[in-house]
Amino acid sequence: MWSIDSDALERLAIGAGILGTGGGGNPYLGKVHAREHVRRGARIVVIGLAAVPDDARVISVGGMGSPTVGIERLPQGDECLRAVRALERHLGESFTHLIPGEIGGANAMEPLIVAAQTGLPVIDADGMGRAFPELQMDTFVIYGARPTPAAFADPFGQTMVLDGIADARTLERYARAATIQMGGAAGGAFPPLTGTEVKHTAVPGTISLAAAIGAAVLDARSSLADPIAAVLQVSGGVRLFTGKVVDVVRRMEGGFARGVVTMVGTGDDASIELRLDVQNENLIARTGDGRVLAVVPDLICVVDAETAEPITTEVLRYGLRVAVLGIPAPALLKTPRALAVVGPAAFGYGDVPYVPLSGAYGVGGGPA
Amino acid sequence: MWSIDSDALERLAIGAGILGTGGGGNPYLGKVHAREHVRRGARIVVIGLAAVPDDARVISVGGMGSPTVGIERLPQGDECLRAVRALERHLGESFTHLIPGEIGGANAMEPLIVAAQTGLPVIDADGMGRAFPELQMDTFVIYGARPTPAAFADPFGQTMVLDGIADARTLERYARAATIQMGGAAGGAFPPLTGTEVKHTAVPGTISLAAAIGAAVLDARSSLADPIAAVLQVSGGVRLFTGKVVDVVRRMEGGFARGVVTMVGTGDDASIELRLDVQNENLIARTGDGRVLAVVPDLICVVDAETAEPITTEVLRYGLRVAVLGIPAPALLKTPRALAVVGPAAFGYGDVPYVPLSGAYGVGGGPA
Repeated sequence: MWSIDSDALERLAIGAGILGTGGGGNPYLGKVHAREHVRRGARIVVIGLAAVPDDARVISVGGMGSPTVGIERLPQGDECLRAVRALERHLGESFTHLIPGEIGGANAMEPLIVAAQTGLPVIDADGMGRAFPELQMDTFVIYGARPTPAAFADPFGQTMVLDGIADARTLERYARAATIQMGGAAGGAFPPLTGTEVKHTAVPGTISLAAAIGAAVLDARSSLADPIAAVLQVSGGVRLFTGKVVDVVRRMEGGFARGVVTMVGTGDDASIELRLDVQNENLIARTGDGRVLAVVPDLICVVDAETAEPITTEVLRYGLRVAVLGIPAPALLKTPRALAVVGPAAFGYGDVPYVPLSGAYGVGGGPA
Repeated sequence: MWSIDSDALERLAIGAGILGTGGGGNPYLGKVHAREHVRRGARIVVIGLAAVPDDARVISVGGMGSPTVGIERLPQGDECLRAVRALERHLGESFTHLIPGEIGGANAMEPLIVAAQTGLPVIDADGMGRAFPELQMDTFVIYGARPTPAAFADPFGQTMVLDGIADARTLERYARAATIQMGGAAGGAFPPLTGTEVKHTAVPGTISLAAAIGAAVLDARSSLADPIAAVLQVSGGVRLFTGKVVDVVRRMEGGFARGVVTMVGTGDDASIELRLDVQNENLIARTGDGRVLAVVPDLICVVDAETAEPITTEVLRYGLRVAVLGIPAPALLKTPRALAVVGPAAFGYGDVPYVPLSGAYGVGGGPA
């Protein structure tokens, strides 16, 4: 058990940004919200997955909607809290622990904010180990959790509770339609899991991992070491490519920001062209001659070539000098059951087989 | 207090169809559901508005979605019941009385089905005195009732509770978006009103009126009298026109079936052409030379010229021989406050002033 202070929030924001694999939104605003709570004396307590009591009632929270909306219409900061309260009211029970649904991107911060508001501890684990665009893509649901009752709250005090929905894709569809009506963004709270269920289905240690990645980046920057090498060491990742963005093609398709990013290599990679297929997150990295370097669910992270600052897909543009990193996905995302939901075919790339990156997720990680 | 038996259901279905003014859906399926409950011994008790205790907790129910969907995907029959239960659970209270949100069309039957399922009495009144397409168009909301919490249930056991929504137009927007995702139709239950509130805001006597209209039609048919004259006598209406449909133009616009129906007169009306502006319901009746005969919220009802069988807008077609009846709207729909919500301007006809039909709604009515 440890507490998250302002410095830890800075580390976590960088690490969560990198684990967001281009999607999940920028953690900046959430970090500011959480920091404000910490400044006013709130304590954000994190506990390890193994320490969760078997009979705990664990609630996963996260924002739903377009990250772009979250920038233009600032969140009120209590959306997820009110979603949790609506769910407690619906179920007639109180919850004991929080867990991030998604450690990658802005949703890393949401459970910390709710923790600061409620005093509930946050479990050092999550349901993705990265970012994914849809509700059915978390390990809780993949490994059998019911998708509802789920509650959503917008910045204006409006709430919605959905129940009796048998599959998470349907929940995704309903909640997405309502969220769009709510102005494009809402906080969500998902069905309580027992401690036992969480231990079997969550990706462990991901708050620590994100914080460790961020710490490694900040340490390397201040000691004039290589921040990218530091990320790779902590995350268990490999450098796939270094180069310059030369073309970005974006189109909105089925509510997603799809696109293809083309980069040309520099230095050792000077002879290589890299194509990145993007659908909110970075999904496939392949060379100009069609060799696949990495494919979802393995993490494909684009960072600034000098500082290792994470670069989300919506700000990718011509001329950026970047490094593309590959981090092996957590084991729970690589089973046949998980690959059916988060493998390349689930994103419409049925012709690309999933060939796992070698190595293991977060091998160098641990509490920062 | 009286009970609704199978014969009363037949009468009510005809009267509700006529009061539907072309919209609100066909009451046939709901009638069959309700009749089945009655056959199995359920009792549907109706009580007069004046007999409702001031501290009653009255819940208004009704189906939401496209009537066309209701024909293609048959309702399960317990959608509204489950919406009521979801709302009770959300509020932690039980309700004491039911009231139709809308007496016109299929929604006349929904509260009767719930009454058969729960044993709760139904109040002889409703929130429209006719049919309207949107949630903000009921007298409860027009005269100050909160629009939420509201609950919705689909045929598959899925439920949605919306709360904290300040205005009914927003609720309409959210619920419509979710209902479309639910396959186009759902049962709804709306915030409980006290007996006092219902007495101030409901249109009184409308279940009786619908049943009386239906009884008059059936009696006239069996005694070879004129069913249309019978409708007019009971409803307080006037015959606007008799003729033949010669053209129907339909277009989908903003989720509504908008259209213009052209008719040429027969008999005394042989020199007249009638144009009917339609948006789910019949909104404006005017002659070919632009003279307005009747305009929303007054009721414009198209019925078969011989049998007075109500004809909904979706089955209007070339060659039908029809009578067009005008029934003065209930007084509660004709105040400035109500006209702002249900007058011609609210439907996009800002250039057509509301000139009330003379007479009074349901003057000839009373328990059938």
